[in-house]
Amino acid sequence: MKLLRYGPIGQEKPAALDADGQLRDLSMLLPDITGKQLDPVTLNALDAIDLSRLPAVDQNVRIGCPVAGVGKIICVGLNYADHARESGLEPPPEPVLFMKPACSIVGPNDNVIIPRGSVKTDWEVELGVVIGTAASYVDEADALNYVAGYVVINDVSEREFQLERAGQWDKGKGCDTFSPIGPWLVTRDAVADPHQLNLWLEVNGRRVQDSSTAQFIFGIPKLVSYISQFMTLYPGDIISTGTPPGVGLGQKPAPWYLRPGDTMRLGIAGLGEQQQTLAAWTR
Amino acid sequence: MKLLRYGPIGQEKPAALDADGQLRDLSMLLPDITGKQLDPVTLNALDAIDLSRLPAVDQNVRIGCPVAGVGKIICVGLNYADHARESGLEPPPEPVLFMKPACSIVGPNDNVIIPRGSVKTDWEVELGVVIGTAASYVDEADALNYVAGYVVINDVSEREFQLERAGQWDKGKGCDTFSPIGPWLVTRDAVADPHQLNLWLEVNGRRVQDSSTAQFIFGIPKLVSYISQFMTLYPGDIISTGTPPGVGLGQKPAPWYLRPGDTMRLGIAGLGEQQQTLAAWTR
Repeated sequence: MKLLRYGPIGQEKPAALDADGQLRDLSMLLPDITGKQLDPVTLNALDAIDLSRLPAVDQNVRIGCPVAGVGKIICVGLNYADHARESGLEPPPEPVLFMKPACSIVGPNDNVIIPRGSVKTDWEVELGVVIGTAASYVDEADALNYVAGYVVINDVSEREFQLERAGQWDKGKGCDTFSPIGPWLVTRDAVADPHQLNLWLEVNGRRVQDSSTAQFIFGIPKLVSYISQFMTLYPGDIISTGTPPGVGLGQKPAPWYLRPGDTMRLGIAGLGEQQQTLAAWTR
Repeated sequence: MKLLRYGPIGQEKPAALDADGQLRDLSMLLPDITGKQLDPVTLNALDAIDLSRLPAVDQNVRIGCPVAGVGKIICVGLNYADHARESGLEPPPEPVLFMKPACSIVGPNDNVIIPRGSVKTDWEVELGVVIGTAASYVDEADALNYVAGYVVINDVSEREFQLERAGQWDKGKGCDTFSPIGPWLVTRDAVADPHQLNLWLEVNGRRVQDSSTAQFIFGIPKLVSYISQFMTLYPGDIISTGTPPGVGLGQKPAPWYLRPGDTMRLGIAGLGEQQQTLAAWTR
């Protein structure tokens, strides 16, 4: 099942994508798609709906983040073996974690705003794992049962803010519009193997990231279990699983970064595509 | 005005403390105290209420965090000059920021749970600044106008998780129950000078932290303005302004940490006191 939310910012309605790729409105059946609607029982009930009998939605509508009311976004750093090799870095002994605030979330095709004074706004295609059931101290063997599904995330990052402005990465990760999420939440049952998904990102049509979640250093069961040792994961929380090589900071012979008017297009096999235009900050 | 929320976890009701120290129920006048109720117009209307005519609340009731639906907690590291001196560290050139997830919030007197496997659970009394009006790229001169009021926060921290477990502090800051907040939100107008507040913390009756916000390296207008350059601060968001010397990690001749059964008592002049008992993790 592919769940999504459509409509103007702040007024999104729930919908699903049917087998023919047609958006179908769900707003008469559920108030919204939040953590509350992501428990296994509700997802199972939604799956029982014959979507072809629900109202079709105009395909040109704006798409929002497929989950409303996200509580927290826990991000994993340096989780791709090919990225570690390219950087000449040792894989970390355990997952590196940081956070993005939920206020940085936008829809998958909304503009990304370059913050005032930024000269190093950068891209990161990532697989997002959406929690469906509260997870505290869960075992790896059981961890996937706490996952509602998967999303595409662009973990937009400002490298100067992140790395050159006095400690801790969070400062360059949480800027407004820095977390495009969507288009769809693809439920866990609809993803054959989340550790075999190609993912890619293009800037102005040039492919800069092109890898596979097969390169994960720490797989999804490990990440869910690991994070749940430090804090409870709640329904609607999202784990962003790290990015493969090819970000602006890693470009050879020299790093290069996003400028107003640039476009990012990115996607993950089976999870859909995003496209953002970079906008300059204005008051 | 001193606003608070009382009642069982998840069922808190809004209240205010009157001039005689009596809790007065506000639940017939507003649904809850969230970011929505913290704008200047609503706070002004609340201030017009003759609290003595509202129902008294049993003084022995549980107190919750005075703000519901906190979006984000932005924390400031190393913000006390006396702490920097004691540690032999240079004051940072600009504020160090990190985040705590809102799911770590508990009431001011709730138990703090030592996470499974933790041997370095530590304390940090901090002044919290609660945002009342959305703040993006605000100037220092104007920054206090975006503040609804002030709270006591215990920024409980697990030092091994924070410092010895592969990068980024967030891992040791967001554990369940690691953010006791309250008892009251004291509105800005009721705090004569937030940069002249004594604050202290005791473990098992022994005073370990005892300082003043006069030691701030970066004052509140600077912090609000600074953070608003990186992300929009929304009503109900909280800035935790850093801790003075005397945490467990800094004890001489050797660090020592919290154990099950220990108690923490902490307070800030005019903002009330908290008391927590440490509990062992259990499934």
